[in-house]
Amino acid sequence: MCKKRPLILISNDDGYLAKGINELVDFLKDMADIIVVAPDGPRSGMACAITSQLPVTITLVNQTEGVTIYKCSGTPTDCIKLALETVLPRIPDMVLGGINHGDNSAVNVHYSGTMGVVLEGCMKSIPSIGFSVCDHDPNLDFSPTRLYIQRIVAQVLEKGIPMGTCLNVNFPQFGPYKGVKVCRQTRGRWGNEWASVPHPRGGGNLYWLTGNFSNHEPESTDTDRWALDNGYVSITPIQIDMTAYPLLEEMKTWEL
Amino acid sequence: MCKKRPLILISNDDGYLAKGINELVDFLKDMADIIVVAPDGPRSGMACAITSQLPVTITLVNQTEGVTIYKCSGTPTDCIKLALETVLPRIPDMVLGGINHGDNSAVNVHYSGTMGVVLEGCMKSIPSIGFSVCDHDPNLDFSPTRLYIQRIVAQVLEKGIPMGTCLNVNFPQFGPYKGVKVCRQTRGRWGNEWASVPHPRGGGNLYWLTGNFSNHEPESTDTDRWALDNGYVSITPIQIDMTAYPLLEEMKTWEL
Repeated sequence: MCKKRPLILISNDDGYLAKGINELVDFLKDMADIIVVAPDGPRSGMACAITSQLPVTITLVNQTEGVTIYKCSGTPTDCIKLALETVLPRIPDMVLGGINHGDNSAVNVHYSGTMGVVLEGCMKSIPSIGFSVCDHDPNLDFSPTRLYIQRIVAQVLEKGIPMGTCLNVNFPQFGPYKGVKVCRQTRGRWGNEWASVPHPRGGGNLYWLTGNFSNHEPESTDTDRWALDNGYVSITPIQIDMTAYPLLEEMKTWEL
Repeated sequence: MCKKRPLILISNDDGYLAKGINELVDFLKDMADIIVVAPDGPRSGMACAITSQLPVTITLVNQTEGVTIYKCSGTPTDCIKLALETVLPRIPDMVLGGINHGDNSAVNVHYSGTMGVVLEGCMKSIPSIGFSVCDHDPNLDFSPTRLYIQRIVAQVLEKGIPMGTCLNVNFPQFGPYKGVKVCRQTRGRWGNEWASVPHPRGGGNLYWLTGNFSNHEPESTDTDRWALDNGYVSITPIQIDMTAYPLLEEMKTWEL
């Protein structure tokens, strides 16, 4: 579909200095012109948050042949919104989030700033993909993901993705991987989410977010958690229409 | 379903001092025991963001017969997560977000901190509803919403909501309303999203988020935007499973 050299907009939620986003640029810079507009520091867990109370800034960091990098003071979603209206020379052929240091499968899709990037690209009708590895190590070896990412990006540049949908790609903690599974979002829930310590100045506790994820359907083999737990790369197609259509039908009988 | 007095957890993204949340408490305090755990200041547009880089605190503000109010230093989603593991005496019968000062229909569901509250309640398998009015006025007259909210809450306390789903209720800017429509999420897109001013210290622009929403299907009469534009209260049932099932089927033919 792309006869001229494609243009890819890349952002993340770990910030423009994170290893994951720089590896992603390295993997793709022979395939496309790349513009990075990424947060100026960590924004993990920012979901689709937008900056409504403060202004945001965008600053050129570095420009080399085919790769231009900007940092932005806002959220991951702000980065995409701002890139599209300021520094991009045209609508990009693709928006990518990642490579995230951490798992964005199952309900994590709702909290993920990486997926905030991807959903924003999708809402702007641009083919969009998030890449995440189930490991928070800032020095992670991303090399096992390289060929998978190049192949998925090439396929999506060729085929596109239907309007209103995007892809959430997660890699197991350790490679080599057994292959790719197209999956649905796993049902499950976070629990034990807070670690508390007494506030050093008194007056109560400080609570740090932590937690364990419970997979509510560990036997189901078509979920993203199953794929990841069994050594496969998971691709979960995601849609921006969150309407619960079966409930919509049922509610027509309610007296409202 | 609730024989004893129900317990309702309420939060929002405008902060515990906002008029909307205090009106919501006032509308429901005769029907239920209420615990408010709401942000200590505005958190509009925070989506499902969680606080991953800092600790959060929760502080008792006020306690009267049947109504207890806490403020929290975190996001709307943090408020629900923290309430469930700290101050609540039991799993509540319902989680409510709102009443939000501003429209959460269409794709706004993705950016809304009010819906962050609701999605978090839903992810914890608690019947959850968001209430929003399409007007940002901090002194808005919420009285036209009163009977609708009481009726919807009573119905959901009685009937429940299927697991994995929740409700996004929006009110037109002006009452009286023509009635209630159960709707799907409108397809559309925000554009012209940034107002820029030169940075007073030089070195570039400051960008403030703004924008216009384009309804991509203004003729469709089953959408939440249509209902709101035509004087109806919209109820959009929402699900936490974001899997794009049609694309999942199609991708089984991809070479990945």
